[in-house]
Amino acid sequence: MADVTAPPAIKTVPKPRDQHLRDLADCIRFLSMDAVQQAKSGHPGAPMGMADIATVLYKDFMQFDAADPHWFDRDRFLLSNGHGSMLLYSLLYLTGSTDMTLDELKRFRQIDSRTAGHPEYRHAEGIETTTGPLGQGIANSVGFALAERIMNARFGDDICNHWTYVFLGDGCLMEGISEEAISMAGHYKLGRLIAFWDNNSISIDGATSLAVSDNEVERFRASGWHVQEIDGHDTDAIRDAITAARAVTDKPSMIACKTIIGFGFPTKAGTQKAHSDASGEEEIAGARKILGWDSPPFVIPEDLLRAWREIGAKGRAARTAWADRVQAAPEDLRREFERRSSGELPADWKAAIAAARAEFIAGGKDLATRQASGAVLDHLAAAIPELLGGSADLTPSNNTRAKGMIEIKPGDYSGTYMHYGVREHGMAAAMNGIALHGGVIPYGGTFLCFSDYCRPSIRLAALMQIRTIFVMTHDSIGLGEDGPTHQPVEHLAALRAIPHLGVFRPGDPVETAECWELILEASRRAAVIALSRQPMPLLRKEPGNENKSARGAYVLLEAEGGERRLTLIGTGSELQLAVQAREILQKDGIPTAVVSMPCRLLFEEQDAAYKKAVMGTTHARVAVEAAVEMGWDRYIGFQGRFVGMHGFGASGKIGDVYAKFDITTEAVVRAARETLAEVAG
Amino acid sequence: MADVTAPPAIKTVPKPRDQHLRDLADCIRFLSMDAVQQAKSGHPGAPMGMADIATVLYKDFMQFDAADPHWFDRDRFLLSNGHGSMLLYSLLYLTGSTDMTLDELKRFRQIDSRTAGHPEYRHAEGIETTTGPLGQGIANSVGFALAERIMNARFGDDICNHWTYVFLGDGCLMEGISEEAISMAGHYKLGRLIAFWDNNSISIDGATSLAVSDNEVERFRASGWHVQEIDGHDTDAIRDAITAARAVTDKPSMIACKTIIGFGFPTKAGTQKAHSDASGEEEIAGARKILGWDSPPFVIPEDLLRAWREIGAKGRAARTAWADRVQAAPEDLRREFERRSSGELPADWKAAIAAARAEFIAGGKDLATRQASGAVLDHLAAAIPELLGGSADLTPSNNTRAKGMIEIKPGDYSGTYMHYGVREHGMAAAMNGIALHGGVIPYGGTFLCFSDYCRPSIRLAALMQIRTIFVMTHDSIGLGEDGPTHQPVEHLAALRAIPHLGVFRPGDPVETAECWELILEASRRAAVIALSRQPMPLLRKEPGNENKSARGAYVLLEAEGGERRLTLIGTGSELQLAVQAREILQKDGIPTAVVSMPCRLLFEEQDAAYKKAVMGTTHARVAVEAAVEMGWDRYIGFQGRFVGMHGFGASGKIGDVYAKFDITTEAVVRAARETLAEVAG
Repeated sequence: MADVTAPPAIKTVPKPRDQHLRDLADCIRFLSMDAVQQAKSGHPGAPMGMADIATVLYKDFMQFDAADPHWFDRDRFLLSNGHGSMLLYSLLYLTGSTDMTLDELKRFRQIDSRTAGHPEYRHAEGIETTTGPLGQGIANSVGFALAERIMNARFGDDICNHWTYVFLGDGCLMEGISEEAISMAGHYKLGRLIAFWDNNSISIDGATSLAVSDNEVERFRASGWHVQEIDGHDTDAIRDAITAARAVTDKPSMIACKTIIGFGFPTKAGTQKAHSDASGEEEIAGARKILGWDSPPFVIPEDLLRAWREIGAKGRAARTAWADRVQAAPEDLRREFERRSSGELPADWKAAIAAARAEFIAGGKDLATRQASGAVLDHLAAAIPELLGGSADLTPSNNTRAKGMIEIKPGDYSGTYMHYGVREHGMAAAMNGIALHGGVIPYGGTFLCFSDYCRPSIRLAALMQIRTIFVMTHDSIGLGEDGPTHQPVEHLAALRAIPHLGVFRPGDPVETAECWELILEASRRAAVIALSRQPMPLLRKEPGNENKSARGAYVLLEAEGGERRLTLIGTGSELQLAVQAREILQKDGIPTAVVSMPCRLLFEEQDAAYKKAVMGTTHARVAVEAAVEMGWDRYIGFQGRFVGMHGFGASGKIGDVYAKFDITTEAVVRAARETLAEVAG
Repeated sequence: MADVTAPPAIKTVPKPRDQHLRDLADCIRFLSMDAVQQAKSGHPGAPMGMADIATVLYKDFMQFDAADPHWFDRDRFLLSNGHGSMLLYSLLYLTGSTDMTLDELKRFRQIDSRTAGHPEYRHAEGIETTTGPLGQGIANSVGFALAERIMNARFGDDICNHWTYVFLGDGCLMEGISEEAISMAGHYKLGRLIAFWDNNSISIDGATSLAVSDNEVERFRASGWHVQEIDGHDTDAIRDAITAARAVTDKPSMIACKTIIGFGFPTKAGTQKAHSDASGEEEIAGARKILGWDSPPFVIPEDLLRAWREIGAKGRAARTAWADRVQAAPEDLRREFERRSSGELPADWKAAIAAARAEFIAGGKDLATRQASGAVLDHLAAAIPELLGGSADLTPSNNTRAKGMIEIKPGDYSGTYMHYGVREHGMAAAMNGIALHGGVIPYGGTFLCFSDYCRPSIRLAALMQIRTIFVMTHDSIGLGEDGPTHQPVEHLAALRAIPHLGVFRPGDPVETAECWELILEASRRAAVIALSRQPMPLLRKEPGNENKSARGAYVLLEAEGGERRLTLIGTGSELQLAVQAREILQKDGIPTAVVSMPCRLLFEEQDAAYKKAVMGTTHARVAVEAAVEMGWDRYIGFQGRFVGMHGFGASGKIGDVYAKFDITTEAVVRAARETLAEVAG
């Protein structure tokens, strides 16, 4: 690194306004330093820089009760600069969170500890979301703040009335997703969202001035935020700024906090050397001297720990008062609140699925699965009031707006539909925040091709195992004229590669209803439903409500006229090709089964006997999907064949495009004859 | 849609300042209307709204020669709102581009035409980049403008001195990538970049006010842009604004052009109904009346076509003068310019690869492949001056800054290293622009996990078949403590699923050098090189410079003591596990081969005989890679085994993490015994 990248260290610390607050903040600083040093890995700079802000926020504002981390009406605290995880872990330990012990801090970044390198949702109580990939937390926070207002609009101030606080770093603001989040929060006037920017002017490469010259204050103002600039180590200024931010209720607030990264380090403070990695014993010894800290590593003086534990307990009265209010609420309202906040669906919601299914069968019409999905949503929206629809500016294409859905408007959160704008990434991360907040179940649409634009958030939804639902239409070359930039070919494979993510690609209207049922009932599984632009025939006409998609794949049509000699496997809009090919092959005397595989993940969860029953014992197999082959080799083996895409798509009429890439009934028949010959021979 | 989403139509058009310019613009309007109507598909609104701006820009400013679309010093025109492709196709036809015929316009959006739904690079001359996925064009433009300045710094005003113009829509500005691009362009003071915002306040869902309230003017100003606001149908104002923008040389310029979408439509102008889809004969008839246009569909009046052809030819003199200046330049400079602008590498560049390789073998040390890559780059940077290194704020981690690389600074473009900031998406799209511009070969780094943040641009690089190089380090759970948010598990599969993309994962330092050689010599292949954080042993020690990685996979160690009974396949940091397992298995008397597969794409391009020779005839096979299985079934079939990841990673010390997920030599040996047993039967 050239010297230009290295700003000089800040070797002194400003005199505190309030020594007690400084001492409380130093608890965070030393726990962070000690844990990083012990792990020989981690990021001490941000926790040390933001300790004063966190202290004032927790002491004077954060409404929570460490004894009950699931209290619904607690304020939410998000750490968008997740690499500063020791800030959060320190706060959890200090305030007495139920499962954050000193021992866990000592096991920072060690295998199977609660204190992973970055905050991991579900690893410890009080971690509201998984952060680390930059910009995600600020975008999550928009979802949290929105869900809070939606629940407030439904259940009133007595039941839902809290704040969302989010810390973020320079890196978060450089990520494009932050702009989508800022723009969305400003537009929707999310006045109960307060963001604290750790304005330390340092990132990994050196001074941020190496790469950025934005006026962040003006940038936030341009999006309708209330903005203040303060010294992030001046506890009076922090308190005043939070008070002022809370007084502005029709705008989100950003407090630009000028801080010193690694505040207290003798040689690294204010430089990128404080950002990452253990600082070394010498540097910590220097910090002890500078900050006047006598305690040994990992030891918090008793009086300070007591003061912190009081902070952790100070919300108890508010929580019990809230619980009393909930109990005193009208029976219906209370029950509805308890149901929604628990994530449980209404008792009779499956009737909506059955109704949609019956309609499809009675109608008997060809439908695009996006249309079928729209029809299912019409029923579901009436049955499940916590559904929050939305689209990234493709509402008429995604068929996401169900009958009766009123849009959320700035300042009016009584609706159930979001115009997310052309902000796929912001939408996805906001949906994650909504799902994490609870009480609202978000689904949002875009084209499958643009799953790429929000992939980091889809991944986090899968990692967190939350019910975020991605409605992805125009799911193949079948979209036709828009051409290769809009035609997904690798996206199904790329999404199926994400662990725990339910990727559903229904093959007809009835499967579409089934997939929605599976998606909604799994409260701990994120899902993508891939839907066609083009009409598809009704292939499932049997009576009853058995959800055949539930096992991921099933025999749609069994071989006839003898033992199965061939298995054709299809999904989505190509399932019909398998059905048509089977007809030809059966006529030729080849007992042929068609397997529909709407969800690979669920199929993989089945036992070996079921899998074998579905796939058959024959190795003569053909998979057909208008997408790349990756992933299909698992089912067709060395002797099977794949009919699908081998490169990017093309612009043209749908029939021409399918013909160009040889994804036709004839191609399936041809492939079938090839695999039969190979197996025979 | 609720009515609130539908602004009223604008049924009249303002009187033109200059009837001739209006007539020229109407040529674009009617070709666009006619082509969309004929295709019954497409987006007429943007071409009709931006026609006046395009006319003034092309007539009075754009320096180009339609007869020579490859003239290096031409001004570049990019259409970031690529759905308005008929604007570009109309311009190409009208100005007399070499391969854009009227017939092609009539075949708009038909299979195998040059006039795809969105502009596709390489489909026709004059399409500078593929656009359609929103925000990509504006981010490409930053790369174009940067490359222009880099070439200018190297070759002087006489040889490289042109402008980059980019049109963009509301949707582009809503995408987060636009913020990364705006921020980057402002920071780097790219004064030769001029952006025209089609400020028509309409997107697909309706009025943009449904989802957005940003003050875009202030937003651009906050990032250091020069901004003007004009009426986008006032040709004097357009001319004055462009003149003013060109006078500001130390800031990029944004001209906010208030326009009417579908300008001229009788009932759809100014509404979202003008955005997409054919407008119908009646609407076009109405537009004819309103705009006073008498010509039949696809017929341009002769005088207007002549005027447009003159616009297409007016740069001829400038081009020949430029060619003369190039000829008159000092021999060395001219040759270097011709070489660089043609994309050809220096004659002796492979000596750099050989030198790095020799160093690795002589040193014999364990090296992380990211370190090996850094060492290769030290040699390459000295040999290939057009290499432009960079990183999205992970320079010290990505090892991307080669010895002697000076950073590009705002206003000083003589360096060869970019601090892209924490802007993976903006970096990737800017690199695409740099590669498309020519004369500079960009590579940029981030963590492999964050390939997700820039995936839309990686896809476009692959689709365009351009030499954009992504250096992705920390390529597995082997990064250790940062945990699951930073540990790629599905990313290798997800990237390998992208057609044409070269995904390289070298297994030792020598392979790292080989992969760099393959990446650089393929001028029409985008590439990702996945590199380890952790040290890896030197496995390739043979003398000579044969590039064994060139065929994608090869036998690293052949079976000994008999016919091969088992094939172990590994990549990257897990290749060593295969090597260690082989040693154990050979001792047990099992003739075992190890196959290294640094690049699946290249292996798939080999003939069947080579593939068979590498994989062997035995179906007893084990693949080992610290990533998901998807894609490996192709090589291991039903009877083989996979050792790798089956879910997300974990935070911990590297050894603990590998042990937790059972990716060890012992696991490979165990899997080998299983597959041997299964094959035996």
